[in-house]
Amino acid sequence: MILTVTLNTALDITYRVRSLRPHASHRVSEVAERPGGKGVNVARVLAALGHEVTVTGFAGGPTGEVLRAGLADGPRPVTDALMPVSGATRRTIAVVDDLTGDTTQLNEPGPQIAPAEWGAFLDRYEELVPGASAVALCGSLPPGVPVGAYANLVRTARAAGVPVLLDTSGEPLRRGVAARPDIIKPNADELAELTGSHEPLRATQDARRRGAHAVVASLGTDGLLAVTPEGRWRAAPPARVHGNPTGAGDSAVAGLLSGLVEHLPWPARLIRATALATATVRAPAAGEFDLVAYEKLLERVPVTAA
Amino acid sequence: MILTVTLNTALDITYRVRSLRPHASHRVSEVAERPGGKGVNVARVLAALGHEVTVTGFAGGPTGEVLRAGLADGPRPVTDALMPVSGATRRTIAVVDDLTGDTTQLNEPGPQIAPAEWGAFLDRYEELVPGASAVALCGSLPPGVPVGAYANLVRTARAAGVPVLLDTSGEPLRRGVAARPDIIKPNADELAELTGSHEPLRATQDARRRGAHAVVASLGTDGLLAVTPEGRWRAAPPARVHGNPTGAGDSAVAGLLSGLVEHLPWPARLIRATALATATVRAPAAGEFDLVAYEKLLERVPVTAA
Repeated sequence: MILTVTLNTALDITYRVRSLRPHASHRVSEVAERPGGKGVNVARVLAALGHEVTVTGFAGGPTGEVLRAGLADGPRPVTDALMPVSGATRRTIAVVDDLTGDTTQLNEPGPQIAPAEWGAFLDRYEELVPGASAVALCGSLPPGVPVGAYANLVRTARAAGVPVLLDTSGEPLRRGVAARPDIIKPNADELAELTGSHEPLRATQDARRRGAHAVVASLGTDGLLAVTPEGRWRAAPPARVHGNPTGAGDSAVAGLLSGLVEHLPWPARLIRATALATATVRAPAAGEFDLVAYEKLLERVPVTAA
Repeated sequence: MILTVTLNTALDITYRVRSLRPHASHRVSEVAERPGGKGVNVARVLAALGHEVTVTGFAGGPTGEVLRAGLADGPRPVTDALMPVSGATRRTIAVVDDLTGDTTQLNEPGPQIAPAEWGAFLDRYEELVPGASAVALCGSLPPGVPVGAYANLVRTARAAGVPVLLDTSGEPLRRGVAARPDIIKPNADELAELTGSHEPLRATQDARRRGAHAVVASLGTDGLLAVTPEGRWRAAPPARVHGNPTGAGDSAVAGLLSGLVEHLPWPARLIRATALATATVRAPAAGEFDLVAYEKLLERVPVTAA
């Protein structure tokens, strides 16, 4: 079982409107809802790849109930080990403009987590970790969770001998890295914020020195740059990709994790992560991936030494 | 008991953001939720004025449950006679821009109403009407409800001898007016769409000829213009009002209805409606009214023969 942690889960809502104009009134032509938050997205992709996945973190209120119902739904459900919380799970609203295809995003902050709720989560996490083949810690922290939360969760996984991937940003990433996670997957902005360097190879190496065993930087259309104890590689999409990048980073995390638990060598993990991310950009629905495109891409993603 | 009908109820959500920019990502700093839809807003104001109110229409899904919980909440709850429906109650999102104070509105279309659900509602409505001192029919029709719905509901109320106010737009208004409601309360645009005339007095008189016994046109900052069997009047705010006009029309409807069931003469009803609408524009929260401002305004709204 792979365990994904999403402390700030979300009910992701997508609206289609003809054209978004500030200060006007808009009729929404289409509404879609699905469970969200980075770790939940990672879990969905892992389940689609055939892995057994457990999702933990917090869920509360009516939005939390809709999220949990969504996790149990569908052809490949994931195991729900979310902890109840008195506040309501946040919504995110993606407003897709029919004329341009562009998206405007509105993200609620998330529920206030009480100290007792955070304590109950830590107990549950400690119970879950020993049964996991890998752990992914994903996304932002809701209000009330200590900024050193991920450092704490990284240490628990490492103490249990379970490999742990961290995908977050800002101060939670800075503190988490110091606890020596097995993998971090920052994007270019997150990496620059962590290291102060905008030069990807230098910044990636610097992030390793800060404590991460392996750093896989996601550089948008330039693909992935991995600096690991086994070597350094770049993997890139075989051609310029058009589509919706929402969820591409989460699909890359699912690729890295599934490759890790299947004991694939790093180049094969990077091919899988790049193919999944690219197939996610190409899929018509945000955050879904195109399985046929994914399988074709697996044979076409170039990996080179960096 | 006053009965308000809201076929397309809504969970009204208000977001505060620093500044809404299309195609950017926004952190919502503040989230507020409350039961909405025009008839629900009218009921809230009537309850605040001390009237016994029953709300009917449709509610379904998790958003419908939140809406129903909201109706039972608060210092002056209203009686919930909403009919369950298999689809989910729509959300409306008002995005308030902190920098400008302007609002961008996103309205979901509402659930599809099945013929059996519409039939069940009609049965319930026929049970409720004889116990009502007045009926208000408010807002848009959700998908699946026949366009002649309001005409049908107007006829049922008139057959029971219960005065009925209609506040809607477009074809449902056109058909509803032909069924001879006691009062309609169109705004300037709705009136122009109904009659083809942009001249308020002429259009208001024309709307009466189409079947409405009394027409109260809400003309924004110009106040109300009423053409009734008892006479013609204008009532206007005593001074230019600044604030959020959301819900001002619904407050005016509550003023007209409460005045009707209290057997006030028309000028007093128009003063109350104008004072409530003005006190709603002035209130800091959208759709709420400022009770102190309302009571002061009651003595200051001028009514003149039109």
